[in-house]
Amino acid sequence: MMGPGPLAGIKVLDLTSVVVGPSCTLLLAQQGAEVIKLEPPEGDLLRKLGGKSRTPGMAPKFLHFNRGKHSICIDLKSEGGREVVRRLAAGVDVFVSNIRAKALARLGLDWATLAGLNPRLVYCNIAGFGAGGRYRDKPAYDTIVQGMSGMADAMGRVFGAPRYMPFVIADHMTGFLAAQAICAALVGRERSGKGQAVEVPMLENMASFVLREHMAQRSYGPEGAIGDVRMFDPNGRPARTADGFICVSPNTDAQARGFFLAAGRPDLAEDARFTSVAARVAHTDAYFAVRAELLAQRTTADWLARLEAAEVPAMQVNGIADLFSDPHLADVGLIETQQHHSEGEVLALRPANRFSDGLPALRDAPRQGEDGPAILRDLGYSESEISHLLTTAVLVP
Amino acid sequence: MMGPGPLAGIKVLDLTSVVVGPSCTLLLAQQGAEVIKLEPPEGDLLRKLGGKSRTPGMAPKFLHFNRGKHSICIDLKSEGGREVVRRLAAGVDVFVSNIRAKALARLGLDWATLAGLNPRLVYCNIAGFGAGGRYRDKPAYDTIVQGMSGMADAMGRVFGAPRYMPFVIADHMTGFLAAQAICAALVGRERSGKGQAVEVPMLENMASFVLREHMAQRSYGPEGAIGDVRMFDPNGRPARTADGFICVSPNTDAQARGFFLAAGRPDLAEDARFTSVAARVAHTDAYFAVRAELLAQRTTADWLARLEAAEVPAMQVNGIADLFSDPHLADVGLIETQQHHSEGEVLALRPANRFSDGLPALRDAPRQGEDGPAILRDLGYSESEISHLLTTAVLVP
Repeated sequence: MMGPGPLAGIKVLDLTSVVVGPSCTLLLAQQGAEVIKLEPPEGDLLRKLGGKSRTPGMAPKFLHFNRGKHSICIDLKSEGGREVVRRLAAGVDVFVSNIRAKALARLGLDWATLAGLNPRLVYCNIAGFGAGGRYRDKPAYDTIVQGMSGMADAMGRVFGAPRYMPFVIADHMTGFLAAQAICAALVGRERSGKGQAVEVPMLENMASFVLREHMAQRSYGPEGAIGDVRMFDPNGRPARTADGFICVSPNTDAQARGFFLAAGRPDLAEDARFTSVAARVAHTDAYFAVRAELLAQRTTADWLARLEAAEVPAMQVNGIADLFSDPHLADVGLIETQQHHSEGEVLALRPANRFSDGLPALRDAPRQGEDGPAILRDLGYSESEISHLLTTAVLVP
Repeated sequence: MMGPGPLAGIKVLDLTSVVVGPSCTLLLAQQGAEVIKLEPPEGDLLRKLGGKSRTPGMAPKFLHFNRGKHSICIDLKSEGGREVVRRLAAGVDVFVSNIRAKALARLGLDWATLAGLNPRLVYCNIAGFGAGGRYRDKPAYDTIVQGMSGMADAMGRVFGAPRYMPFVIADHMTGFLAAQAICAALVGRERSGKGQAVEVPMLENMASFVLREHMAQRSYGPEGAIGDVRMFDPNGRPARTADGFICVSPNTDAQARGFFLAAGRPDLAEDARFTSVAARVAHTDAYFAVRAELLAQRTTADWLARLEAAEVPAMQVNGIADLFSDPHLADVGLIETQQHHSEGEVLALRPANRFSDGLPALRDAPRQGEDGPAILRDLGYSESEISHLLTTAVLVP
């Protein structure tokens, strides 16, 4: 359903780049906020790093993370450029950046300065590390945060040595959390009339994620063991069928019984090694071995039909390529064909979440700086001022 | 800094369990919302499944996901129980559940019914699969969603066969996104006066996450290759040092040069195989091999000092256990000792994100149903009505 979206009327000045910040402001744009993406003269790095593109600076990953946004390209090294940012900041609801706090202060774009111009401003700094700790000025990349937060160690407990997950997942997750924190601050502002600063540090967020999952007995003191060991079990993986893989974990007594009946093995359904949780835990290896053997004998489709009839939760494993033909995703129209104004026909993702009052149609991802002059006109800059900013390379077309 | 939090005054009726929903409402509670956790007579499953506990039903993982919440334990199979929920729903700002839509409708807890009682209500259903698609009634677990969304396939591109990540990560991420969507809907409500329903489906959200990262050239048509292959590179992992592991990726020309100088190898800094991005890509294997060899020769601490001086971003790899002694996390006080009212001394996590106007102190995770009578009194139930609900097992103490 179409509608203005719950964030209609909210203006966001977005000084973020690559993934962590754009994943935050993408959510805000999807939900109706007007997002002004302010890029440096060289453009968001993701324009080039995000894969081979049809035209320069329009990498496919950039397109996915920047739907619905407007772009203005400004040189913040010039006073004229910083003046543009201050004038923008005075009129928006949200300022968000993933620039280090020290550099923001040097640019005069710290919270105290901008709050002086706009006391209703919600100011969000997505940081690698919180300002209250000694790593505050260290550079952070997704891989560094995966390494420092225990995410790579958790992977190592399964795969033998620390590994990264095959996503810049600390960036994505921190981006979601930043969008959440910004919206919470906006709720507060609507009620109090007052903006505030929000700090969203990657390490603290990812360490919290890891620890909520894996603090385990260490919650009770230094002698307690770390780790939810079920997640480190090498057997805990999609199982092989005759023609692919399947997700199935018959965990309850009824499911274990249902699984053996679905397999045509009532004898195993009565096997004392498998009839209770305690028995299955005591015979874990045997339970996994017999399941693996049975699963390998039939196709995924055969198993899915049998397990559904037996009320054992199970689903197919989709390869990434299978998502383009998954019938449920087609039903909900997750992937849509879009006519991009400079890139031609491209695939794009609609918002995953539905709002009953509707969400707006999303404009496609902007070319670098293409909305600059229009944004300056809205700010009250005259044509001659805009020409001057262009000729002095403060505004990049 | 202490303060009421940006969500102060927001009341949340929380019918979620295990991880996906509690990870959502934890954020809301941290930010000042009053969260009423409504549990079935058997309690949130995580109370038992969340690890060995000191007292029954208080598993450590449950404690981490449910700080700051109140618990009432109600049997929704009884009409008296459903009446309690309706009376609660009439007075709260947010209703959130991860119960399947069909079951909610059977209980009379669908959006249409509750909106009739409370038009300002934000109603969030965290679903496995969106109501608009054919999997709408299928059961979803974290592993099933990891398998169906392409997350397990992405892992398989690194590790040889589909694998789950060692976290219930689809639950955590969807929970973050649900909290974001709820707050966005609250922003809209503060401005329009009107609540709405929000659907947050796990599969759609996780498939979007995977596709934004890995749609790559497939964005341009069916013949395009899927995958950001840098993330599938087996070399892309924390590197071994003489005494552990380190995160370091000298990606720019300056960083590659700095790395070799830090290693005391000016000859390699001038080696034509490594002086430009194009050259390093053409000699990827040699570049990784020479780096691995050099990194293995010194300790992590030695390398960190050398690389910092050379302005090459690098950090240590923390084991999960190291997080308890990480000096930055200690500076910011991420892990705190808490005197739990029934569990004694336990470690707990403070909110990762900071709000300049402060966040409230969090009460500790509730015992099952311990706030029930007080919540009913607030709703206007008399002592004799409460006794009746207790004796008829509608309210579980």
